[in-house]
Amino acid sequence: MSFNSSKPITTFFFIVIILALSLTSVFSFSVDLDQSLTYIWPLPAQFTSGNETLSVDPELSLALSGNGGRSRIVKEAFDRYKAIIFKQTSSRASVYKLLRGMRSGYDITKLSIIVHSDSEELQLGVDESYNLLVVKNSDHSIIGEATIEANTVYGALRGLETFSQLCSFDFETKSVQVYKAPWYIQDKPRFAFRGLMLDTSRHYQPVNVIKEIIESMSYAKLNVLHWHIIDEESFPLEVPSYPKLWQGAYTKWERYTVDDAYEIVSFAKMRGINVMAEVDVPGHAESWGAGYPDLWPSPTCREPLDVAKNFTFDVITGILADMRKIFPFELFHLGGDEVHTDCWNSTPHVKQWLQDHNMTTKEAYRYFVLRAQEIAISKNWTPVNWEETFNAFAKKLDPRTVVHNWLGPGVCPKAVAKGFRCIYSNQGVWYLDHLDVPWDNTYTAEPLEGIDEVSQQELVIGGEVCMWSETADSSNVQQTIWPRAAAAAERLWSRREAISSENITLTALPRFHYFRCLLNRRGVQAAPVTNFFARQPPTGPGSCYVQ
Amino acid sequence: MSFNSSKPITTFFFIVIILALSLTSVFSFSVDLDQSLTYIWPLPAQFTSGNETLSVDPELSLALSGNGGRSRIVKEAFDRYKAIIFKQTSSRASVYKLLRGMRSGYDITKLSIIVHSDSEELQLGVDESYNLLVVKNSDHSIIGEATIEANTVYGALRGLETFSQLCSFDFETKSVQVYKAPWYIQDKPRFAFRGLMLDTSRHYQPVNVIKEIIESMSYAKLNVLHWHIIDEESFPLEVPSYPKLWQGAYTKWERYTVDDAYEIVSFAKMRGINVMAEVDVPGHAESWGAGYPDLWPSPTCREPLDVAKNFTFDVITGILADMRKIFPFELFHLGGDEVHTDCWNSTPHVKQWLQDHNMTTKEAYRYFVLRAQEIAISKNWTPVNWEETFNAFAKKLDPRTVVHNWLGPGVCPKAVAKGFRCIYSNQGVWYLDHLDVPWDNTYTAEPLEGIDEVSQQELVIGGEVCMWSETADSSNVQQTIWPRAAAAAERLWSRREAISSENITLTALPRFHYFRCLLNRRGVQAAPVTNFFARQPPTGPGSCYVQ
Repeated sequence: MSFNSSKPITTFFFIVIILALSLTSVFSFSVDLDQSLTYIWPLPAQFTSGNETLSVDPELSLALSGNGGRSRIVKEAFDRYKAIIFKQTSSRASVYKLLRGMRSGYDITKLSIIVHSDSEELQLGVDESYNLLVVKNSDHSIIGEATIEANTVYGALRGLETFSQLCSFDFETKSVQVYKAPWYIQDKPRFAFRGLMLDTSRHYQPVNVIKEIIESMSYAKLNVLHWHIIDEESFPLEVPSYPKLWQGAYTKWERYTVDDAYEIVSFAKMRGINVMAEVDVPGHAESWGAGYPDLWPSPTCREPLDVAKNFTFDVITGILADMRKIFPFELFHLGGDEVHTDCWNSTPHVKQWLQDHNMTTKEAYRYFVLRAQEIAISKNWTPVNWEETFNAFAKKLDPRTVVHNWLGPGVCPKAVAKGFRCIYSNQGVWYLDHLDVPWDNTYTAEPLEGIDEVSQQELVIGGEVCMWSETADSSNVQQTIWPRAAAAAERLWSRREAISSENITLTALPRFHYFRCLLNRRGVQAAPVTNFFARQPPTGPGSCYVQ
Repeated sequence: MSFNSSKPITTFFFIVIILALSLTSVFSFSVDLDQSLTYIWPLPAQFTSGNETLSVDPELSLALSGNGGRSRIVKEAFDRYKAIIFKQTSSRASVYKLLRGMRSGYDITKLSIIVHSDSEELQLGVDESYNLLVVKNSDHSIIGEATIEANTVYGALRGLETFSQLCSFDFETKSVQVYKAPWYIQDKPRFAFRGLMLDTSRHYQPVNVIKEIIESMSYAKLNVLHWHIIDEESFPLEVPSYPKLWQGAYTKWERYTVDDAYEIVSFAKMRGINVMAEVDVPGHAESWGAGYPDLWPSPTCREPLDVAKNFTFDVITGILADMRKIFPFELFHLGGDEVHTDCWNSTPHVKQWLQDHNMTTKEAYRYFVLRAQEIAISKNWTPVNWEETFNAFAKKLDPRTVVHNWLGPGVCPKAVAKGFRCIYSNQGVWYLDHLDVPWDNTYTAEPLEGIDEVSQQELVIGGEVCMWSETADSSNVQQTIWPRAAAAAERLWSRREAISSENITLTALPRFHYFRCLLNRRGVQAAPVTNFFARQPPTGPGSCYVQ
């Protein structure tokens, strides 16, 4: 079979669903959330389920077709998910298969994946929609037992994740089963930008820990890793143009080579996740001066970076030129937050420069931000700034700027009213280092709160939970991220109406428990759901599913 | 080359070391601990190092010889360690190799492993000694650049771990290097039994989490996983003879199949780790009655198990028969701790039985323990009991019993004085759930404290740190285990004199920091070393190496 990539994917599935309906008599629609508690996280846009239980062959095969039919991204994802799905069917599975095969065989022996486009470009707004059908095999059927159809390989990845969540190991029969089949799911994300920020400056995270975080993001269908690589405490990244910069690393072992960064970007792309790098200027940059003390206005004024020297902007240009080769994502974060310019005024040569240029320190802050934006834009990047730059000089900001909210609610409404795009990260609910925020506050936070015009709503490209790492290192970062990041992930993926029930204790909490335990099973150290403080240990013995 | 497996491994290495000495002029002996801070954990029995830096080829090859030269255990371990050692030399390593190769080539391109015995039997006291030589390649040398010699495959595994700890990634040259070469290490463990207990009843741990724990144990050269599978809260294990037992699991998902248990034993063996299973009777067994309520004396007296019914011992016999197929280790733990027999007396049929048999409840407890021991012994197991059985009726205990200390210090001295073997787990220092025990108390705890006679010292087979899981689940178990388990691991592996310095802040703490960061790099969530409470988050930004 071959498909035209421009054909809406619903057409094929419309035919399929009619066929499925005609092949099974137990098909029951259940769109009512209370009845169809599905344990899929995040909740798909549309789905129907039935009452059949289907068994899945541990030697499940892949039939990949369409213009994207040779995609290594999909093939490797299939192998990953197969390992996840059949983790508990041990090496003895073939014995069971033999026993079982003599009796009846499996209901699902093949997963067909149809990818319409052969483009693997991963940019903001890439089509992540997919349709998934899981139906009992029948000799009369022309369609596969399990089929994912997507316009892009990234839609196929999202479909694979959902398929893996439909599969569960049955301890009685020792086989993987899909309950409530047939399933027909039509799914797509609500927001294009569904991010997690990771700070690797306050604590260094080894590359494989970052990979584990990326892998876990894919389970919740998050799609942007905002990598806050550098901050005032340490500069772990190798910058070939200015090789002394990573002398600002804590130790010679707590560093990322250029190859490490490439590896992270590549690993993320294989999971449909973009990496948005950040170079936070002019504040939060003290560590830069460890290698190049000239970047400090003076030994006692170590940040913000020296606005008076061209060298400062040469270094920024060099860093961005080196990073542009590594990070293909169109968005690049330039920070701009928490800039305390007092000591500029008390540093003689900077004070002189301010006088010469007839600038206040506030104006110099603006000058710095805009000059950094120009450098990023010249490298074909869209600049992202923390909201302070918008709050301070919205009119002067490049109109392409994406405003990154964090200080509180109400900023995205102002930003989109002025025509800027916005990312929602209200710290009161979406800062993961705020350990006193319970899961339901994270869950009910709404990026479109206070924005009624559709045209303005469309400027909110999504949201991001932020993992500032002052008290998070490799020992506890995953349990600080999860499960609350998943609460935000459903907010960003699922339809607003479907997840805005009055009683989320009934509609979301059991699924949330289930997803947390799924993360644990997959080796992600997600903390108990309902502890008052995030990442607290369980309070006593008990099942994962109620803690 | 072929070697006689009965030949002491020192002979070969004696020749080697002479050769090595004649080949290098920079060889410097440095047995003084202060000078030779080696960052190897646990500290090897004997070692010398020099002043050379050697580069290691990312395509390091394995030359495996001796009677154990076809061992899959060693081959797979080599592959695992190669992945660990070269984790940071990315896919671009071959480019560097090309560049480097044109210049000079690598110093170490081959690891020779000589295993004298072809036996892969893994039992208490298996020979884990090894010699390791790492020396610059020379055309004049008849020996390999890096050589491990061991009597058994398990000694080879320990040597591989040490070799991996000598290798570190250099961020400037982007290559793996061995500092302070040449290295000559002669190593063997001080105790045969170096255990970690894991409780999977208070919280279920998925199989892959257990595997991660086992893997991490091998990094610290621990060699026994004491699997406290079942307790009063849940009965997760499948028992084919009594298939309703795992109805005592928290949920249908929080279970271990027989295959899972096989898988865990096999995974552990590949890492030189025995699995000592525990069936804790007659206390701590309430969950048994979920499937078989007859095991409860009455609905209001749910433990200890019903001493008055033969059915109770039939079930124990069935469980042990099923488990014997899975667990080949000669030691089997029968619990016996914290048995509160009051409600036996208030249950009419048990009270009657006690009268009929002219027993007090204390005597019935003894009767139960001894009958369970007989069952285990009949299955060719050596019984292990928590110390209460020794404290209560030492004279009646089977002399083969291994006494497992936990209540405090001073028990092993009493046990060995009476001719029993003993495992040291003094809860004040080696219970990992005691979060207020700082690392140095764990480190300085001495299993032979109070035992002066060599013949009695030899009865202390080792020690074990215990991870009771009331407040430890998949989200935090690793950070509760590590790094303190490593403090005990060095105590159990290394020579007492070598690690009994007055000033462990100088001799051990820097190495301990380093090992904790090594665990983090390898994906183990070891908590900061010096936090007052174990598993607390870091208190602020900083390097892994000082937290």
